[in-house]
Amino acid sequence: MAVYTHLGAEDLADLVAAYDVGELVSAKGIAEGVSNSNWLIETSCARFILTMYERRIDLADLPYFLGLLDHLSAGGCPVPCTIHDRDGAAFRMIDGKAVALIEFLPGVSVDRPTPAQAHSVGAVLARMHLAARDFPAQRANDLGPATSAEVLKGCGEQALGLIDPGLPQSLTMAREVAERWPADLPTSTIHSDLFPDNVLMLGDEVSGLIDFYFACTDMMAYDLAVTHAAWSFAKGGTHYHEQIGVALIAGYEAVRPLAEAERSALPLLAQGACLRFVSSRAQDWIETPADALVTRKDPMDFMRRLAFYREQGATVFAASR
Amino acid sequence: MAVYTHLGAEDLADLVAAYDVGELVSAKGIAEGVSNSNWLIETSCARFILTMYERRIDLADLPYFLGLLDHLSAGGCPVPCTIHDRDGAAFRMIDGKAVALIEFLPGVSVDRPTPAQAHSVGAVLARMHLAARDFPAQRANDLGPATSAEVLKGCGEQALGLIDPGLPQSLTMAREVAERWPADLPTSTIHSDLFPDNVLMLGDEVSGLIDFYFACTDMMAYDLAVTHAAWSFAKGGTHYHEQIGVALIAGYEAVRPLAEAERSALPLLAQGACLRFVSSRAQDWIETPADALVTRKDPMDFMRRLAFYREQGATVFAASR
Repeated sequence: MAVYTHLGAEDLADLVAAYDVGELVSAKGIAEGVSNSNWLIETSCARFILTMYERRIDLADLPYFLGLLDHLSAGGCPVPCTIHDRDGAAFRMIDGKAVALIEFLPGVSVDRPTPAQAHSVGAVLARMHLAARDFPAQRANDLGPATSAEVLKGCGEQALGLIDPGLPQSLTMAREVAERWPADLPTSTIHSDLFPDNVLMLGDEVSGLIDFYFACTDMMAYDLAVTHAAWSFAKGGTHYHEQIGVALIAGYEAVRPLAEAERSALPLLAQGACLRFVSSRAQDWIETPADALVTRKDPMDFMRRLAFYREQGATVFAASR
Repeated sequence: MAVYTHLGAEDLADLVAAYDVGELVSAKGIAEGVSNSNWLIETSCARFILTMYERRIDLADLPYFLGLLDHLSAGGCPVPCTIHDRDGAAFRMIDGKAVALIEFLPGVSVDRPTPAQAHSVGAVLARMHLAARDFPAQRANDLGPATSAEVLKGCGEQALGLIDPGLPQSLTMAREVAERWPADLPTSTIHSDLFPDNVLMLGDEVSGLIDFYFACTDMMAYDLAVTHAAWSFAKGGTHYHEQIGVALIAGYEAVRPLAEAERSALPLLAQGACLRFVSSRAQDWIETPADALVTRKDPMDFMRRLAFYREQGATVFAASR
């Protein structure tokens, strides 16, 4: 959540001149994004987000992510489009790093969503799934339950236990979920990381979905399960907000009703979603020194959500019919 | 250079509602300021910078800093004014921390100023000094050469020598400069930290002076010396850009000609300016672990500028007549 690279006014003005967007008027590095640096850029024409891809993102994937933004934006979804340079390129290189200029969208990210907001998020997620079905490019989800199991195994039972005595059991759970993971549910291009941070809202309406850098081809119901796990709990995963969960699924189904097989898979898909975050957070926890300035996210937050879905998933998702 | 506190959309909307500025439309944490958190806020009316004072700033000084912005802005200087809340207050408290809403100014900070830009900076600095002369509040400069000497003494000769063998001699130099420090030059309210970071430009013109949190009552010629030391050298202090230095002083004198006593004091004032940054950077260097994510600024950068002024200050400032 920082700007990792210094770009001076001269660098930025040179960059902006490569696009047909007017003259540079203002540029502020913004504290958004974990794996890249971002600037809010204003020109004499409009405002934009400039993203510099610092790490984690494979350059070969960039045309996929940026092309997806254009496809969804053209399909009427509230997604920022990519600005192409004067030669038509979706990204450029500065000092060996890729940068892209992206449409700026208004809106703010909520901390404590209301049911009306959750309904709007569900509906926009479904619209996105439908608009993405004819996106021609494919990208495998490399963060499924089998990967979660592998990552947790790599952490080691002892290291997991040092974080919390309840954490090592996640490995067995991940293996169980991976074995039972469905393979025949309808797919599309999914966001797969739609936390409140990645949704911009104006009042009760979604004004933007952002940060598509985990997007991939996978089951649409899995994306809904990720979003349910990300939105429907109090911080720390200690309390399930039933009204939020119900509104989210109702909003989704108002646009794209779930098939029976999708609905009955939701409890398992939600467990897989939790394990994806448990495993990546456990790995980050172990790899990040306790005194680092970066805030480590507690993997137990999603262990609590996982326990909830194991115990009450069947009831919860049946109730939201 | 980060956002130290999380403020969600709900907190921000509540805050914005305390001002007569319309509804919250967008909010981005920005990577600006070292001792406070900043957000670029957009409402249905206009854009603003929201600053949360995290540390280092004495709350008792806040009315001085915020009142100065209003005074200078009303006096026609390109300085953001403070937005007062519906009750007329210049700042509010959130969870025990003061926050202020400040006008947003366009412009970008340059890395490699041109002589035309330096001329504009000099002229605006002089305008600021003149506009601030009737600012009624006073604040002592607590970072003069006597403080530099104390800070360097506190670091200890051994610790200074571990940073660089050339650094311990700064202590003797600071004592010499403090002994010879003038007391009878004309004063005003000065910025005292006018690095390129703190100046916004549109083309060759200054569109904003920002970050007045070191402002104090002191000699105007000292502020010019600080600005000269901050602007006229290549990064690292290895090379003096004569054209920049000359243009800066010419720009200043186009608005406010220096008295003979001010001009002849400049070589010493510039040494004092360098020592102020050598001492604070040496202290930060010693107090910041080498592996911290925060970038430490090399105190030797300003030792090189100090050496330059000791050797060539008299010639340089005579030449810019």
